Amino acid sequence: MLGLQPVTENATPLPHMTQAGAALTREIEILDEYGQRRAIAIPIERPLTVFVDKRELVTLMTLGSAPELLVLGYLLNQRLIATPADVESITVDWEVSAAAVKTRVGIEHIEARTAKRVVTTGCGQGTVFGDVMAGLEAIVLPDAASARIRQSTLHSVLEAMRQQDSVHRRAGSVHGCALFKGSELLMFVEDVGRHNAIDAIAGWMALQGVKGGDKLFYTTGRLTSEMVMKAAHMGVPMIVSRNGVTQMGHDLATRLGMTLFGRASNRHFLCYSGFDRFDSEPEPMRPSVRVVSSGNEE
Amino acid sequence: MLGLQPVTENATPLPHMTQAGAALTREIEILDEYGQRRAIAIPIERPLTVFVDKRELVTLMTLGSAPELLVLGYLLNQRLIATPADVESITVDWEVSAAAVKTRVGIEHIEARTAKRVVTTGCGQGTVFGDVMAGLEAIVLPDAASARIRQSTLHSVLEAMRQQDSVHRRAGSVHGCALFKGSELLMFVEDVGRHNAIDAIAGWMALQGVKGGDKLFYTTGRLTSEMVMKAAHMGVPMIVSRNGVTQMGHDLATRLGMTLFGRASNRHFLCYSGFDRFDSEPEPMRPSVRVVSSGNEE
Repeated sequence: MLGLQPVTENATPLPHMTQAGAALTREIEILDEYGQRRAIAIPIERPLTVFVDKRELVTLMTLGSAPELLVLGYLLNQRLIATPADVESITVDWEVSAAAVKTRVGIEHIEARTAKRVVTTGCGQGTVFGDVMAGLEAIVLPDAASARIRQSTLHSVLEAMRQQDSVHRRAGSVHGCALFKGSELLMFVEDVGRHNAIDAIAGWMALQGVKGGDKLFYTTGRLTSEMVMKAAHMGVPMIVSRNGVTQMGHDLATRLGMTLFGRASNRHFLCYSGFDRFDSEPEPMRPSVRVVSSGNEE
Repeated sequence: MLGLQPVTENATPLPHMTQAGAALTREIEILDEYGQRRAIAIPIERPLTVFVDKRELVTLMTLGSAPELLVLGYLLNQRLIATPADVESITVDWEVSAAAVKTRVGIEHIEARTAKRVVTTGCGQGTVFGDVMAGLEAIVLPDAASARIRQSTLHSVLEAMRQQDSVHRRAGSVHGCALFKGSELLMFVEDVGRHNAIDAIAGWMALQGVKGGDKLFYTTGRLTSEMVMKAAHMGVPMIVSRNGVTQMGHDLATRLGMTLFGRASNRHFLCYSGFDRFDSEPEPMRPSVRVVSSGNEE
């Protein structure tokens, strides 16, 4: 994870936050197909119960790499707070698996606003309170003339992700999410759920005052409606995934004018929507490649 | 999906259920790295709001291949009902995206029992009400002498899954879950979330009166705590995943004496826990294979 420190020159008062560290992997012994026993690393998954002004809100299952940013981003992405300045402090204590959030003036109607549950497709934090599509009308993303991407930049992004050191590389079974400006990696977070990872990035962006209009999200997870919606709420018009897309993710992106790339790794990708933001620089076609490409390989 | 019909000779009254069909995929146009536009299929993802005795419980995002079984299995796996006989009818109507559940005698204390939320790691239906680990003490799985698996049977399971026709093969971006007895595939369900798929199988098992003790689950998703817990509650002592394991999934399986296989495809696998149920029939080792195997490839 990069860039955890909040910028101090920010005009609004920033929340006080702990920086609760935790081990991310553990070794276990396995037995393989050759009858061999050997040690491998697996990611740790821990509960973190979020209390807002001493009221229990939710328990998130997390890797624990950036718990304070996760909690901040979760509250922002659930539209329970508007800015980090609404929060006075976030105190994570792994001894009791709790994150205590102290707000400055409370959250109005929190009972009513968290009463409606939607269990979404997402790996990880796949639950949103209230209407999934609420507030979408208010979203205005930069137009295709000002926020666009070249195929060569997309390749640089994929190459940066390929080279990134990660828990996934050491232990598998986690999702990664990254924020790019052009081909520059600004922030990278992994978690057992991809929604946790994107929430932590939302927390970081809000804390740093980083805007989304000229940024690109990379995720290892599928492009479901909730992932697309979260990116849209954060003002990010372009998403790249190593994985595929669902119909609701595609519909939402099309409606919002967002550009989605999926099945993206090495030099391969599919652009699913928002072709107008994309400067295609076609690869030379090799007949053998064309024949085997089904468009939906996992 | 196989075997939707409930057995009619069952002694307990079975719920009346619609068989609401729905399209599973849609075609979209994509742009690829060669600058070519072409059509691919993507899975459809639709909301299904569950009402229990006219009270709104939850909205599930689902592919919609087996909505009635999904709802039944969801209620069972959330421990809100004990048997299918608690339910009089399940009526799914895609026109209004709703599943109306009518119980025979209501669900006691439903307000209190659904008040506590845990957002878990899971792809899909990653939310449970109440304590994640509640009721585990009551689970007794068959011992390792009576419920075991040979490596050759595991290979047959993986080969059956490889050959299975699927939405995943046509459109990607869904998870599959299957129930096996030995190398015989009994039931296969896909959904946008792997928790939906396992819930639909739970619904089918309960409806058919199928016990879990001599069965094996196959899932394409990760072996997180919630997946392991659901299988345990359904009495299934062995799980095979194409994907990896998290530490809580591993801990739970170890504690319950369950056998987990991960990274399983073709002839490769890792046995993570419950070695005592597994009759290893080691492959001959090829040095070149050993060198490249990290144990954590995705």
